[in-house]
Amino acid sequence: MAGVQGPRTFDAFTGRYAARTAGLTASEIRALFAVASRPEVVSLAGGMPYTSALPLDAVGKLMSDLLATRGAQALQYGSGQGDPALRELICEIMALEGVVGSPDDVTVTVGSQQALDLVTRIFIDPGDVVLAEAPSYVGALGTFASYQAEVVHVAMDEHGLVPEALRAALARVGDRAKFLYTIPNFHNPAGTSLSDARRDEVLAICMAAGLLVLEDNPYGLLGFEGPPTQAIRARGGSSDGNDHVIYLGSFSKTFAPGLRVGWVLAPHAVREKLVLASEASVLCPPALNQLVVAEYLTTQDWQGQIEVFKQIYQERRDTMLSSLETLMPAGTTWTHPTGGFYVWTTLPDGLDAKIMQPRAITARVAYVPGVGFYSDGQGRRELRLSYCFPEPARIAEGVRRLAGVIEAELELLDTFGPALTARAVDGATTPGPGLA
Amino acid sequence: MAGVQGPRTFDAFTGRYAARTAGLTASEIRALFAVASRPEVVSLAGGMPYTSALPLDAVGKLMSDLLATRGAQALQYGSGQGDPALRELICEIMALEGVVGSPDDVTVTVGSQQALDLVTRIFIDPGDVVLAEAPSYVGALGTFASYQAEVVHVAMDEHGLVPEALRAALARVGDRAKFLYTIPNFHNPAGTSLSDARRDEVLAICMAAGLLVLEDNPYGLLGFEGPPTQAIRARGGSSDGNDHVIYLGSFSKTFAPGLRVGWVLAPHAVREKLVLASEASVLCPPALNQLVVAEYLTTQDWQGQIEVFKQIYQERRDTMLSSLETLMPAGTTWTHPTGGFYVWTTLPDGLDAKIMQPRAITARVAYVPGVGFYSDGQGRRELRLSYCFPEPARIAEGVRRLAGVIEAELELLDTFGPALTARAVDGATTPGPGLA
Repeated sequence: MAGVQGPRTFDAFTGRYAARTAGLTASEIRALFAVASRPEVVSLAGGMPYTSALPLDAVGKLMSDLLATRGAQALQYGSGQGDPALRELICEIMALEGVVGSPDDVTVTVGSQQALDLVTRIFIDPGDVVLAEAPSYVGALGTFASYQAEVVHVAMDEHGLVPEALRAALARVGDRAKFLYTIPNFHNPAGTSLSDARRDEVLAICMAAGLLVLEDNPYGLLGFEGPPTQAIRARGGSSDGNDHVIYLGSFSKTFAPGLRVGWVLAPHAVREKLVLASEASVLCPPALNQLVVAEYLTTQDWQGQIEVFKQIYQERRDTMLSSLETLMPAGTTWTHPTGGFYVWTTLPDGLDAKIMQPRAITARVAYVPGVGFYSDGQGRRELRLSYCFPEPARIAEGVRRLAGVIEAELELLDTFGPALTARAVDGATTPGPGLA
Repeated sequence: MAGVQGPRTFDAFTGRYAARTAGLTASEIRALFAVASRPEVVSLAGGMPYTSALPLDAVGKLMSDLLATRGAQALQYGSGQGDPALRELICEIMALEGVVGSPDDVTVTVGSQQALDLVTRIFIDPGDVVLAEAPSYVGALGTFASYQAEVVHVAMDEHGLVPEALRAALARVGDRAKFLYTIPNFHNPAGTSLSDARRDEVLAICMAAGLLVLEDNPYGLLGFEGPPTQAIRARGGSSDGNDHVIYLGSFSKTFAPGLRVGWVLAPHAVREKLVLASEASVLCPPALNQLVVAEYLTTQDWQGQIEVFKQIYQERRDTMLSSLETLMPAGTTWTHPTGGFYVWTTLPDGLDAKIMQPRAITARVAYVPGVGFYSDGQGRRELRLSYCFPEPARIAEGVRRLAGVIEAELELLDTFGPALTARAVDGATTPGPGLA
């Protein structure tokens, strides 16, 4: 539009925003939300836990009991750090993964997303580097971008983050790196877990470099095979090792995301700053939600409920993997998660998951294109499939639809070659009649 | 300690924090929390609403009903902007103060503190100026500092913000000012309200200067005399005026702070950025809390409950004012709030509320020293008294204790002069035996 007078701007504040505001962009997942929520679409996009499996009446009764006995407290302001009794319980939960932490070093947050925000806020100046797996959690990448961090991706394979790639990245960025962000268990979106040996190696590399590890662990208790794996935070042994890890936990996947209760366990000096940052951000996390979680943990069989969730998710994972195996065209590959919510899929060479997306929506199946899980444009052939929310029959139907879309793309590619495919599909990003 | 080797630092990350982290400091109120919560201390410090007056059983039943009918939704992720039905109800509430706003321009936040954080986040670069009343809300000042804003205070009198002082401040800081932060109703901490004529004048000044008004209105419905005053946001008339005001509201004072449900009504382009910033910060506000508020507003007599609150607070305000009138030594002055929670008190010349604080605690009465409500060291003679939470008899006793402390300070001043008073009391900031 150079040389042409543009239309009147409708944002009276253009030019008045903070520099960081340019880093705010709608996530791939959020952008999909409206269309993927339509009932005729099988959504393999969202990472929503299956909250219908919760004992809803028991949770309701627990709330009315709480209001009857401690209502004035549940509806009042609380401390910025969070309810002390809940912080005790959180330490018991972390102990299941070998973490020895003090309630005094725990800060309760508005979901672990707020913990991500607070850690980024206190450590990241514009231009600082965050090391993160390739791919990484889209919500974390959004937070890092909102503080003008530069994200440097570190390669993964089927055993998780590759230590050699971490060493190489560190050698490149040096002191500009403030922390390594990693999801060691049932990775979002990759579906893989970091092997035991690599956990020790990754921690050793970071300790040697004086680099913090930000261990994000929402899915650790949702493994389908055997007991939970020891956390990176549990491997320091000495307090020295523990001083290099900030551990994030959440009740969103083991209980309920609608409560927005997560936590961060941090070295004491960091914890003090996190509490101040949280007070500046939200004053205090909601007292009601914290007391509800504490009551749930003390009066309900919360570990039995996790077993219920695991059975549901394992069945859905099995359905997704067998459907993929049966239906996907040759050249398509995917990961084999042993827990969590996600299967990471790579399309045959020449296809583009982002360009293919409108056609998939037209075929009434939704996924998240891979590019959103990278900060650097990688991931065009990749996409995330979630099996956590739809019933198994819907998952099978969704994979069937997706396989059909991929086959059609391959035919197009075979007939016209990659250039025309891309061009034709660019046009299709304007929703066609099927979406009107 | 120059030239002397200091002790080993216990913060392994000193020098690794972001520049903004230096702006994080514990608020005067938070620092007081532990000591002011002790039962033998009459706390006139906190701004906690009297949640015991809520219909706790009805709220509990409402929650169990909600879980029975929409439990899976209440415990699930929601949209970043907030529940659409709640946003409709919020617009009905704002209409009570003359505000005509669209639910599409409302963003639900984790208390209005999060709204403050988000607005600051999207507008403030380090060194930008925020204009704020003198004194101003301590939580807002903390948020502004956490984004490295420079706060320039604007004088108030008994009719609120002084327009002439606003003009003078604007002339000084010019384009560096990003917004005017103001609490027009029952100001925290000043206890005063902005007169009708000045609301129009303040808006006109800001519109002429292209300056945003950030209108923070948690107490607007808690006036003891007559109907609510028309909001600044309601005075634009044309959409042009409305485009200059960002309005913050909250259920913390009219319902329950433990839910952390507030909101921001903003011009559309600003709203889009607020939603993205909120998603980066907390993903979404808690669905449970939003649905509880929506159910409360639709099934309970919430306006009748506000009348109950107003009667309680008015009686306490009356007790505080009459106790001050009867007991305070000459030279002490205070404001006469017609709503809200706070009386702003100025000590006799020569006294210092911050230095006096440990003696007050020893005398078992707590208040908030005035310095915390300024960014520039003003307010040494001032202090905030809250009448919202203690029963009337406790308020009278608290004021009696405080009057005794002030009298003792005046005697000390009279005997030894101001220099020794300050020195003696500096020593007393280490808690004495009465606090052990």
